[in-house]
Amino acid sequence: MPRVVKLAVIPGDGIGPEVIAEAEKVLDAVTAGGDVVFEKTRFSLGAGRYLETGDTLTDDDLDAIKAHDAILLGAVGGTPGDPRLAGANIERGLLLKLRFALDHYVNLRPSKLYPGQDGPLAEPGDIDFVVVREGTEGPYVGNGGSIRQGTPHEVANETSVNTAFGVERVVRYAFALAERRSRRLTLVHKTNVLVNAGRLWQRIVDEVAREHPDVAVDYLHVDAATIFLVTNPGRFDVIVTDNLFGDILTDLAGAVTGGIGLAASGNINPDGDFPSMFEPVHGSAPDIAGTQQADPTAAIGSIALLLDHLGLQDAADRVSRAIEDDIAARTGEKRSTAEIGDAIASRLKA
Amino acid sequence: MPRVVKLAVIPGDGIGPEVIAEAEKVLDAVTAGGDVVFEKTRFSLGAGRYLETGDTLTDDDLDAIKAHDAILLGAVGGTPGDPRLAGANIERGLLLKLRFALDHYVNLRPSKLYPGQDGPLAEPGDIDFVVVREGTEGPYVGNGGSIRQGTPHEVANETSVNTAFGVERVVRYAFALAERRSRRLTLVHKTNVLVNAGRLWQRIVDEVAREHPDVAVDYLHVDAATIFLVTNPGRFDVIVTDNLFGDILTDLAGAVTGGIGLAASGNINPDGDFPSMFEPVHGSAPDIAGTQQADPTAAIGSIALLLDHLGLQDAADRVSRAIEDDIAARTGEKRSTAEIGDAIASRLKA
Ligand SMILES: CC(C)[C@H](C(=O)O)[C@@H](O)C(=O)O
Ligand SMILES: CC(C)[C@H](C(=O)O)[C@@H](O)C(=O)O
Repeated sequence: MPRVVKLAVIPGDGIGPEVIAEAEKVLDAVTAGGDVVFEKTRFSLGAGRYLETGDTLTDDDLDAIKAHDAILLGAVGGTPGDPRLAGANIERGLLLKLRFALDHYVNLRPSKLYPGQDGPLAEPGDIDFVVVREGTEGPYVGNGGSIRQGTPHEVANETSVNTAFGVERVVRYAFALAERRSRRLTLVHKTNVLVNAGRLWQRIVDEVAREHPDVAVDYLHVDAATIFLVTNPGRFDVIVTDNLFGDILTDLAGAVTGGIGLAASGNINPDGDFPSMFEPVHGSAPDIAGTQQADPTAAIGSIALLLDHLGLQDAADRVSRAIEDDIAARTGEKRSTAEIGDAIASRLKA
Repeated sequence: MPRVVKLAVIPGDGIGPEVIAEAEKVLDAVTAGGDVVFEKTRFSLGAGRYLETGDTLTDDDLDAIKAHDAILLGAVGGTPGDPRLAGANIERGLLLKLRFALDHYVNLRPSKLYPGQDGPLAEPGDIDFVVVREGTEGPYVGNGGSIRQGTPHEVANETSVNTAFGVERVVRYAFALAERRSRRLTLVHKTNVLVNAGRLWQRIVDEVAREHPDVAVDYLHVDAATIFLVTNPGRFDVIVTDNLFGDILTDLAGAVTGGIGLAASGNINPDGDFPSMFEPVHGSAPDIAGTQQADPTAAIGSIALLLDHLGLQDAADRVSRAIEDDIAARTGEKRSTAEIGDAIASRLKA
């Protein structure tokens, strides 16, 4: 009996469907003839669905998704400034709702400069690090509000919530990851200004560090961390940080490693209580949707993270190698989304 | 009768005194024989003072500083991890206290890639923009707290406070600045997640934009802004943003324009109710203090901002030009802090 993995597929908006088609192509290629079968369910969610039905993510959607083992997501979000979307916040109502409802407390974002890959840095050095971004707390919790909205006396607040429980579990994950990598962990925060949240993060890191004497731990303020990301990204191995700082640092990390078109991510519930979700870091880029200009590499890289999460290490490594080989062979010639997907998939069949 | 400007000088800690010595050298050179006289008062403040007396910034210090027309600050902060400073937060208790008490609602941070200046980017292009960072609100207000501190049940909150009053005044300043520059203004925020603060910032920018039909306005999420800062920094002219995003973006901006050793800043109260404060963006770098390795260019650039703020446009331009000429003449040979200061000062006498 083959192992059956139930995969929820959310192609989403803009370039989402295009890059997901290539990701599925690669998933099919790497699992062909093997003893794991992916049973896919497609979910129509995103700005498109909202415009049709007015729904962002219903309870039924959420229940149906929860009945899966994992989720593959393209990108969601409509054209910026579309007046029909003015009242909707697809990001909050769909993407963040999934991350929170499915308790994706680890947002895993590897950054690697592949041989042959050009980036914006003159001397990038050897870039290979992972950001472990907390996914269920911080300023993302939606605990804000405003009074006297629209008047000259408006006051708008946003509250970042941080708990020992929430910080500890993601910090433990980061240390365990550092143990399997180069045993260097950097906490990034802004402890000198956000003193309460900062004190908590620093305390938990100090405590967990005692259980990992072989992991070298350091600390950087988020502003200083952005400097090192462009002047010496090779210094990083595992970065652990809060939800907002992680959002900022991983876009920057994507840029310095040759573009957000390569950056894959996993929204992970390590305890397995809920399905984890894999998605490219990039957005839906409605301006180039349907033109086959999008690079599907980030979506395909998310397949590698998915396979790894499912314990299919061998398949994960094969996908990673196929991506690496494809990037090394890139000549600068423009290829369509499908051509890149085909090229990577064919390396898996070979 | 010469005009007398009362200048409070806070050399501070680490490399602060070294770079301030050069800044004063340049100030003396550019004002020599002119009709403006700077009367300087030195304030001993920072980690050094705290270790001696236990004081960070007393009411008397603050009153004395307020009696000045402007402030020149080096850098404050002791050696990270110094146990004697564990209870002190020099940044909050001194630097941020000054910014808040003196209502420095504009934190002005120009970024420019000078001819001859090397940076980390392979193709930097033409970089010349200014970040107008809000200085008295946002997550910097100190409205946080924690319960069950030190326990597994700790909850630590940080609240970002944003007011229409506070946002409007800094946005107006940014538009006025854009009018004097290339008439492009970018709002940077995270309106899709920090929806309350984001709605307020976006509304105010939209409203003030109507009074400036000749300024082209766009919007970027903070994560996307970091990407553009390394892939296309030339797209920016004036960036207006909140206190925390401005902190992060300006360190990154300093890095892409050749190093934080060149980044000058002004903490400005445009209404003139309180003295404005000029300081390099960099910190006190205790590890290289006293070794004459620090680059005083950022401190000297802060003199240009100070002169400009005081309406001494001609002197400000001369200092900027002397910096630019010195940078263009740099050969990569190491010079001491004093040698760089001497070189820039001597261009002003010539
Ligand atoms: C779309 C947005 C809500 C999201 C985030 O801020 O987390 C995105 O930027 C990301 O990094 O996945
Ligand atoms: C020292 C610190 C409080 C300060 C800040 O965060 O504003 C610094 O990073 C800066 O940018 O001037």
